[in-house]
Amino acid sequence: MHSARFFKWDSAGHPICSGGKDPAMAMEKLKEEISEVAGKVNASLLQLSSSHSGALSEAAFHLIKLGGKRLRPFVVTKCCELVGGSADDALPAAVSIELLHNFTLIHDDVMDEDDFRHGAPTVHKVYGMPAAIIAGDMLFAMVFNHAYEAFSKRNVDKSVILRVLEVMSEAAITVCEGQWMDMSLQKKHDASEELYLLLAAKKTGSLYRASALAGGIVGGASDIELAKLSLFGERVGQAFQIVDDILGAVGDPKVTGKPVGSDLKNGKPTMIVLHGMKNSSSEERESILKVFGKQDALEKDVLEALEVLKKVGSISYGRRRAIEISEQAKAELSSFPESKIKSSLQNFCDFVVSRVY
Amino acid sequence: MHSARFFKWDSAGHPICSGGKDPAMAMEKLKEEISEVAGKVNASLLQLSSSHSGALSEAAFHLIKLGGKRLRPFVVTKCCELVGGSADDALPAAVSIELLHNFTLIHDDVMDEDDFRHGAPTVHKVYGMPAAIIAGDMLFAMVFNHAYEAFSKRNVDKSVILRVLEVMSEAAITVCEGQWMDMSLQKKHDASEELYLLLAAKKTGSLYRASALAGGIVGGASDIELAKLSLFGERVGQAFQIVDDILGAVGDPKVTGKPVGSDLKNGKPTMIVLHGMKNSSSEERESILKVFGKQDALEKDVLEALEVLKKVGSISYGRRRAIEISEQAKAELSSFPESKIKSSLQNFCDFVVSRVY
Repeated sequence: MHSARFFKWDSAGHPICSGGKDPAMAMEKLKEEISEVAGKVNASLLQLSSSHSGALSEAAFHLIKLGGKRLRPFVVTKCCELVGGSADDALPAAVSIELLHNFTLIHDDVMDEDDFRHGAPTVHKVYGMPAAIIAGDMLFAMVFNHAYEAFSKRNVDKSVILRVLEVMSEAAITVCEGQWMDMSLQKKHDASEELYLLLAAKKTGSLYRASALAGGIVGGASDIELAKLSLFGERVGQAFQIVDDILGAVGDPKVTGKPVGSDLKNGKPTMIVLHGMKNSSSEERESILKVFGKQDALEKDVLEALEVLKKVGSISYGRRRAIEISEQAKAELSSFPESKIKSSLQNFCDFVVSRVY
Repeated sequence: MHSARFFKWDSAGHPICSGGKDPAMAMEKLKEEISEVAGKVNASLLQLSSSHSGALSEAAFHLIKLGGKRLRPFVVTKCCELVGGSADDALPAAVSIELLHNFTLIHDDVMDEDDFRHGAPTVHKVYGMPAAIIAGDMLFAMVFNHAYEAFSKRNVDKSVILRVLEVMSEAAITVCEGQWMDMSLQKKHDASEELYLLLAAKKTGSLYRASALAGGIVGGASDIELAKLSLFGERVGQAFQIVDDILGAVGDPKVTGKPVGSDLKNGKPTMIVLHGMKNSSSEERESILKVFGKQDALEKDVLEALEVLKKVGSISYGRRRAIEISEQAKAELSSFPESKIKSSLQNFCDFVVSRVY
């Protein structure tokens, strides 16, 4: 529980940076590193979007152009460097992973009928549902096409390219399984935490896992190293998902870009809802159930349910579990020799659980 | 216009086999060959569906299990054999192309809100829209995953696997462009025939082109042979699309599995509608426009519009153009040495334009 030293949260679950100068500086440095990777990835994405002209390309790259932190490309890049590769070697895989991520976001928004992301209207809201389906499919196709073309141009070994493509296609299958599970678990407020964690591993962990693996493969990782990177990525993704759920409940919509309480109204059995339902009085449970899975719930009722979740400690519990799981992620890196890159990835685990956006 | 000798059509555009014993026998033999490939592909698809258990797999393989002629796998297989490969070598690519095709069908049905295919309810009709989006995505991911795994198991050369995957991802991008174009051209009854043919090349030709190319690559085709196979596939696809449009207008719904006139009601600028609008009196044009793009058009009005299209010769014109284009496809095969395989592919061109389902 190393990172618990660095971060604390207030009763509402907002992080308070209290660890003094070092951790704050480490976070600043990490953000610079993330920005550096994001800059290169964004340049490639921009080039890619302009090579496919017209309205389809505009729709496909709508979300990508609105922003995003490019965290998965960061993981690809640093895992490549961790095992001896260069950041530049990792770029094609980093770009492809971001395409894959954005494909899932476009289709997710259609399925959840979410109208806002990154604080702006979603693809189906701007272009209509049929267009959003095609736009997502287009990005999905480009995942494989871009990786193939960009790696081939760099004369990367064919077996490396094939293994990266295999990782991407496996991740895509797992994401679909996760999205299906997400749909099946809708309104199931009595699901187990194990099931929630499996869902988080499939829906979110799979892309972080693929990021770590793709970076490792390009960097020339051994099978033992890949096994560790695989678990590292999956754990990072699970912790990320728990924090996403928390930010959806107590985050600042101006910062997160998402309306507060939408998970509740969508009937998503997040870890905090599952905890809340198990650790509240029957009256408090009533408050939660009044809005859970109710798209037309009143805002005051949503806020009341969120107050219950804070009061019974569900937000703090979620934070605790996120930190525990991010510590498990860090532990997977323990056998790699100490280095700046390793520190970056460890700091990234802290960032994932302390982020407010 | 070799095949015009074999087939004639009545005024309604139904084919009449009039060429005597030989062409009828050739068609029977071709159907046996198509069935033989379909049997092997279906066995692989069944195995694949059972390796992913649960409701997601059921939704993803719903259309595949309902049937389908497996024409694209036939093209993969025969093009592989044409250049010296074996049918068995081509199987992984044949299966992947069929997965890719069915992915496009599932998403197409969602976008067009079509409730029936192969005479049964479509995926979104049975499982709901969000589930159909995921089911399509799942098949799409399996395209790459299956090709990679099945070819790797057979120790196929890595550069061959990569080139097949490249062909698949390029085809997927082109299909998306075609679907986007299809959407953009909706209700455009004054589109040019050139634009229609470009649409047919992108939406339908791309998968036949990919089939021919993938078969050729696996079979060890030279670059010159691949260039010919590429054009062969694209032309076959265009001819196929024209006939699809004709069957949608004058086919037997019990045989085609699709309600008559749905393209008209969906406002699709098919070749026959474009011809009809240009070659009819203002009164006849009124009949067409009364139902074109009108989802709630009355059946009697749809039948009247179809009568106009028959009367002004649009169905016969479509047949003629389909035959011309399928003859262009055949011409691309002319430099390949005569063989049973080449005859099969030539007969396939005749089948594409004479089929009633």
